[in-house]
Amino acid sequence: MSILIKNAKIVDVKGTRKGSILIEDDKIVKIGDIREDEGDKIIDASDKLVIPGLINTHTHLSMTLFRGIADDLQLHKWLENYIWPLEKHLNEDYCYAGALLGCIEMIKSGTTAFNDMYFYMDSVAKAIEKCGLRAVISHGMIDLNNEDKMKKEIKESKRIVKKCHGMADGRISVALGPHSPYTCSEKLLKKTSKYANKNNLKIHIHVSETREEIKTIKERYGMRPFEYLDDIGFLGENVIAAHAVWLSEEEIKIIKNNNVKISHNPVSNMKLASGISPVSKMLDENITVSLGTDGAASNNNLDMLEEMKIAALLQKVHYLDPTKLSAKDVFAMATINGAKTLGINAGLIEVGKKADLVLINVKRCNLTPFRNPISHLVYSANGYNVTTVIVDGKILMEDNVVQVINEKEVMEIAENASDELLSKS
Amino acid sequence: MSILIKNAKIVDVKGTRKGSILIEDDKIVKIGDIREDEGDKIIDASDKLVIPGLINTHTHLSMTLFRGIADDLQLHKWLENYIWPLEKHLNEDYCYAGALLGCIEMIKSGTTAFNDMYFYMDSVAKAIEKCGLRAVISHGMIDLNNEDKMKKEIKESKRIVKKCHGMADGRISVALGPHSPYTCSEKLLKKTSKYANKNNLKIHIHVSETREEIKTIKERYGMRPFEYLDDIGFLGENVIAAHAVWLSEEEIKIIKNNNVKISHNPVSNMKLASGISPVSKMLDENITVSLGTDGAASNNNLDMLEEMKIAALLQKVHYLDPTKLSAKDVFAMATINGAKTLGINAGLIEVGKKADLVLINVKRCNLTPFRNPISHLVYSANGYNVTTVIVDGKILMEDNVVQVINEKEVMEIAENASDELLSKS
Repeated sequence: MSILIKNAKIVDVKGTRKGSILIEDDKIVKIGDIREDEGDKIIDASDKLVIPGLINTHTHLSMTLFRGIADDLQLHKWLENYIWPLEKHLNEDYCYAGALLGCIEMIKSGTTAFNDMYFYMDSVAKAIEKCGLRAVISHGMIDLNNEDKMKKEIKESKRIVKKCHGMADGRISVALGPHSPYTCSEKLLKKTSKYANKNNLKIHIHVSETREEIKTIKERYGMRPFEYLDDIGFLGENVIAAHAVWLSEEEIKIIKNNNVKISHNPVSNMKLASGISPVSKMLDENITVSLGTDGAASNNNLDMLEEMKIAALLQKVHYLDPTKLSAKDVFAMATINGAKTLGINAGLIEVGKKADLVLINVKRCNLTPFRNPISHLVYSANGYNVTTVIVDGKILMEDNVVQVINEKEVMEIAENASDELLSKS
Repeated sequence: MSILIKNAKIVDVKGTRKGSILIEDDKIVKIGDIREDEGDKIIDASDKLVIPGLINTHTHLSMTLFRGIADDLQLHKWLENYIWPLEKHLNEDYCYAGALLGCIEMIKSGTTAFNDMYFYMDSVAKAIEKCGLRAVISHGMIDLNNEDKMKKEIKESKRIVKKCHGMADGRISVALGPHSPYTCSEKLLKKTSKYANKNNLKIHIHVSETREEIKTIKERYGMRPFEYLDDIGFLGENVIAAHAVWLSEEEIKIIKNNNVKISHNPVSNMKLASGISPVSKMLDENITVSLGTDGAASNNNLDMLEEMKIAALLQKVHYLDPTKLSAKDVFAMATINGAKTLGINAGLIEVGKKADLVLINVKRCNLTPFRNPISHLVYSANGYNVTTVIVDGKILMEDNVVQVINEKEVMEIAENASDELLSKS
């Protein structure tokens, strides 16, 4: 089926232009003046912006079930008293329910692709397939230096690779997900790296999130986290490191030299009081920095429009310089840099790119008067302004109505799953 | 007319309870089990939270016309090259148009009262009256030590007091608005103070927004801004000081001892890279700190739900302590502290309080699963979740449809006004 988006105001990091967009199958095939009869389905985009779908490069989707259960706590209390006790009781059904809810939330706020690390990832994949989104998924591996645990974790990762890599018409790919340098043994990290490189897979890992982590790694290995990962030969262009809050100048060089991809998570870093990542510095070094929401337990939503604004604001106040991280810079992080990070042929609106597109209604009071589209997207917009979402050439939401699944039913399933889960812990 | 809000989940800083709310004229007259025939108009609040309307204690409403025209700039460039040249061409019509747009935006995102300082304030008052909101308004006075200018500014302030104080059934009150200690002469400040105290009016002023301001005031008077204002006898419980970013320990004592009200504007302070206000410290001292969005040119929206979240996040990361500024603290800032600041009998849902209420739909994916209402309001909600807004016992928006004015027409009027204004500068 072909889709014609007519009268669009097309906005990506390369600029703003008017025109129509023709989609055939999963790709953009034509941009410009296009006859109406060329499209099977016509979408009138008058008064709409068409932007590349936003790309969330660090999430734990099923954690939507934990939204709002614990806030304003020290990290160890939050983990030990709330998150870990609940995670013990997770199962396939709960993770499926949480993932469905997360998918709906992402669709409604304009996200078309994401990078997810969690548990029961075949259930998560099922939800993603159902909802039509694009994702890189990974089983989160933690071995705490226990050899048996390591073997189990690697086995589960391989199971997910075999079962899910390339599923949903290729919309889902599987990465390796060693949780972090402080929760994984050197052996696990090395095995992961070897397996990923051999099979051309991404690696998704948390690095340098908190000051405590830096201290732990220094005590254990005599080096800072990125120095250690470099030392053991773990780093490469397929590594997506989430957070990267506390970095030395030397570590920024290591990231750059290894072409490591960084996922910046400002809301989570602020809410958990982890710290402020030197994003502007990394962008100045041409490091690929993208944007992530982290899980809903530490955010507490998955709204990339909000994340863009807060990312820009945080760099400005951190450096006391309002020119840091401009609207365009942060829009690039959420689109083209996300696409580079996940290896997706998207992030720009060009012929040959995947048809992962989002329509934004500019006839809203918070986007009036209509001036600078990228400024409005970053500083003024909210999820409510997203009206239509297309992924892989399929319409997932049209005029604010989710097409792929019954939204109310998903909310009920998630509410029930969360109830059950809380009653067990 | 009476309004019965039935099956409500009532949420204010005192807690959460179920019940119905009866409104007669402008007030809440009954809460609990109420028969349906007691209300002329019934609102079913099943699946809704009812919260006190949010109170925005620092805005420049008509600046919505400048939304998105200039971002990511040094403050002096932003003011000198963009804002001031445009402001020269303002007139009654433009300020009315911008104010209408701002009112709609506030209604849609759950704000019921605000504190506005700008120009052509009788036009702003007309817009507020039309849209049904509650406000304290003030003419922004700047004399730059020029005696003639001072006289003109005070004359204009007095004109607005006479014309607008108590208008719109008492929903509008007028304050005195000396812009700041660095743009106003000592004489203007003293005259303002005397006039306000004599006539029982509030004073709305910007204080200690930037490091440059601290430097200027120290050079000019040998003291820091709040020390200087204390020294000339300006401070008192009727003073609402916006920003208060750079404060010494001594100044925090001065604020406390004079019972000065502080309006915290985190988004504006971040976007303009002004700095981070020590809000947690001030709250620890029992200073009344409320929340403001500032004008749309430096935000770029007027969404208090977003402002609450960013306020909480910013304190946490600033102090590297996730327990700082909890969801409940920041909800108090946006409700009861705002009411105390503006002298409004609202901010809590109790019999005898003004019927300034907002309904939030919790059956939304970003508020699912439904757990802690205040956490969800602060960390997960966005403007889209607001469905119904009541001010002074009148329904301004019902089920997402603005009742008091045609929203589309307002957007057109504002778009045209902004076009004209930009073409002149």
